[in-house]
Amino acid sequence: MNSLFNPKTIALIGASNVKGKIGNSILTNLLFSKKQIYPINLNEKKVLGLNAYPSLKDIPIKELDLAIIAVPKKFVFDVLKDCAFKKTKYVIIISSGFKEAGDIDSELKIKNFAKKNKIKIIGPNVLGIFDNYSNLDTLFLSRSAQKRPKKGKISLISQSGTVGGILFNQFEKKNIGLNKFVSYGNACDINECDLIEYLNKDINTDVIACYIEEVIDGKRFVEILRKQKKPLIILKSGKSKKGSQSVQSHTGNLAGDYSVYNGIFNQFNIVSANTVKELVNYSAVITKPQIKNVTIITNGGGYGILLSDYFENYNIPILELSEIQKEKLKKALPLGVGLKNPIDVMGDANCERYLTAINLTKSFTDTYIIILLGQVSTINKDEVLKLNSELKKLNKNIFFISTMDEYTKILQESFLVYEFPEDLANYLTPLIKNRK
Amino acid sequence: MNSLFNPKTIALIGASNVKGKIGNSILTNLLFSKKQIYPINLNEKKVLGLNAYPSLKDIPIKELDLAIIAVPKKFVFDVLKDCAFKKTKYVIIISSGFKEAGDIDSELKIKNFAKKNKIKIIGPNVLGIFDNYSNLDTLFLSRSAQKRPKKGKISLISQSGTVGGILFNQFEKKNIGLNKFVSYGNACDINECDLIEYLNKDINTDVIACYIEEVIDGKRFVEILRKQKKPLIILKSGKSKKGSQSVQSHTGNLAGDYSVYNGIFNQFNIVSANTVKELVNYSAVITKPQIKNVTIITNGGGYGILLSDYFENYNIPILELSEIQKEKLKKALPLGVGLKNPIDVMGDANCERYLTAINLTKSFTDTYIIILLGQVSTINKDEVLKLNSELKKLNKNIFFISTMDEYTKILQESFLVYEFPEDLANYLTPLIKNRK
Repeated sequence: MNSLFNPKTIALIGASNVKGKIGNSILTNLLFSKKQIYPINLNEKKVLGLNAYPSLKDIPIKELDLAIIAVPKKFVFDVLKDCAFKKTKYVIIISSGFKEAGDIDSELKIKNFAKKNKIKIIGPNVLGIFDNYSNLDTLFLSRSAQKRPKKGKISLISQSGTVGGILFNQFEKKNIGLNKFVSYGNACDINECDLIEYLNKDINTDVIACYIEEVIDGKRFVEILRKQKKPLIILKSGKSKKGSQSVQSHTGNLAGDYSVYNGIFNQFNIVSANTVKELVNYSAVITKPQIKNVTIITNGGGYGILLSDYFENYNIPILELSEIQKEKLKKALPLGVGLKNPIDVMGDANCERYLTAINLTKSFTDTYIIILLGQVSTINKDEVLKLNSELKKLNKNIFFISTMDEYTKILQESFLVYEFPEDLANYLTPLIKNRK
Repeated sequence: MNSLFNPKTIALIGASNVKGKIGNSILTNLLFSKKQIYPINLNEKKVLGLNAYPSLKDIPIKELDLAIIAVPKKFVFDVLKDCAFKKTKYVIIISSGFKEAGDIDSELKIKNFAKKNKIKIIGPNVLGIFDNYSNLDTLFLSRSAQKRPKKGKISLISQSGTVGGILFNQFEKKNIGLNKFVSYGNACDINECDLIEYLNKDINTDVIACYIEEVIDGKRFVEILRKQKKPLIILKSGKSKKGSQSVQSHTGNLAGDYSVYNGIFNQFNIVSANTVKELVNYSAVITKPQIKNVTIITNGGGYGILLSDYFENYNIPILELSEIQKEKLKKALPLGVGLKNPIDVMGDANCERYLTAINLTKSFTDTYIIILLGQVSTINKDEVLKLNSELKKLNKNIFFISTMDEYTKILQESFLVYEFPEDLANYLTPLIKNRK
């Protein structure tokens, strides 16, 4: 799929100068890819400064890597014929109104025509695709409303455009690195199996995250899961009876019984996510080292206690401090510091006190949870910057709880940071069992 | 406790002109109460424009309703003696370093002295108290960093100051109305039982929310729960072995076995929360009508499917559309709209389309979940304003899912709005069983 993710030539059918239009938003994003772009517009000579063409037939090349179709449904088939004329390798059909809206025939017509003409299709009914390595960005999400996530080794595929958009947003918000994002919609041609197989071979993909509503070829899907080597996290919706009915009306396919999927996921050690946040955060965590011994250091007792409760629920092991360690902590830290794990360094703790607690425990622990509650503590931005730079040097698994957006922003540059202890505890669960 | 929550005269020991100091922050907040305030400061003649006094003994009244002590621990006992001299009814001891820091003796000394002199104490080791009806605000949370929640009928008590601050913040963030907030800390005198009993009699309290780390008098606590009439939501931390050990070091008391509490909560129909967000949101939801039939209307299929999954997990009943209703929806709405519940009105839905779906289902449903996904939809601020004002007129249980902060802000003025479907499903659970 190199011509899909890193095309040399791209045509956008439905390119527009009108702000707010889908074809304007996509072209704006395409410009970041610095590829050869051919905007197609019936009336305009120029679109966003590029030479435009009235039809795909008019572009000055004979073969095309990628065509993006962003015109109303009724024009899609004719455009596809033009794509065939230009020997187009890949077509992304943004347009909706097909199977998901009850029009199965139109979708079948497209599917068959494409197959006959050796055109590979993503869609219809998609948000587009995004690649942080080739800089290809065909999404109809404006960059002013939705910043792009930083470059990383996780690739994300989503059947639903809206859920895909929300997942994409979570990557950016949590500063989690992303490689590719594919909204694959009705999957009339390229489906989740094709994408997972491709991503398994992609050298810049270490983790594959999927939001799947329905699997068309169950047998092939199971075969892929069986052989799966790279960590694969799946949010399978339509688990319930009602949910399954909704899948049917949303994509026109049956969702299948969840108990079946659940069994398969367990059998093949696939990480199953139940929510969009789990999908994103499990993906971010999965490549970190397994947790053997956690030490929690907090400047607020309450959050330490709650986190202990959640860790015990999830069987996340908290380091038991030895008498020698307790004695050392007692000598090094002020009176009143909680000499248990969680270590409560109290509301007036500065960076130094956190570091002291870390230094006295680090030969026995592989994972630190640093809780930084800002509301009534003496911690400030300078202290957080200092802590951040010191902890970057420490060769440990480190996760933060921070309740102050200002501190979260600093820490998120290098660490995973959560606001609520129950979320952190949940997101660490992939690290407590042996997983692929 | 009228002299505590609505005192006529207040002294603040440790009042300060220095920004950032606890005694400065508290006095700034006290000024909003428009009571008679006596700042105590050894050196200053004026603090924040008010006449200040070197000692409590110097204030020009003989009896005092409320003294707030915000001086270092070593001075607290002497100040308490002055409080006795001035026949003070209530004392809030903000100062920390007592039992929670291992100094049990100092706390006992204070406790006994207060008892002998008929002084009632909140604390030590607290954030202060807040009352939206009397406008009393003794919190050491600056209003610039933490806006105050709007007035409402929920009262909140928290043993932990930091967790209390986070709970308080959640009320404000979600625009949930609050009456009183009490951070009661080490509870050397007034404890959770006293506060719950008082709030049960308070006419402006309809719901009581508690974060409790340890219960000192279990027998009395159980007796209160047994007789409890008003909805009571409790987040009891220290459930786990580790958590229980941490409670011990944080407040100096034992947490008790959670299985005991769990059994009691179930027996007496007390709503048990496991997280701070559950505590806040269960409290906000609990006084709404019971749910019998939910209709979900969404402009993104995926979130409708996920919500169906979660609702089925939680046994929240989704209305089954009749053939007649489906036929009516089909006639009134464009081709492609999902004629099942969740009703998928599609990404190009405007306010009108949502209203049509509501009007055609409202005689069969008592609860609406309106999902407004902004990322790739045609919804805009004007449409949201219109929808908001129309739905305010509808006499139904209405909850929103919104992914756009701008829309959430508008809708939150009148409705509960959540970002993620799993949260909404969870927070509705108090409405599906018969609860007090």
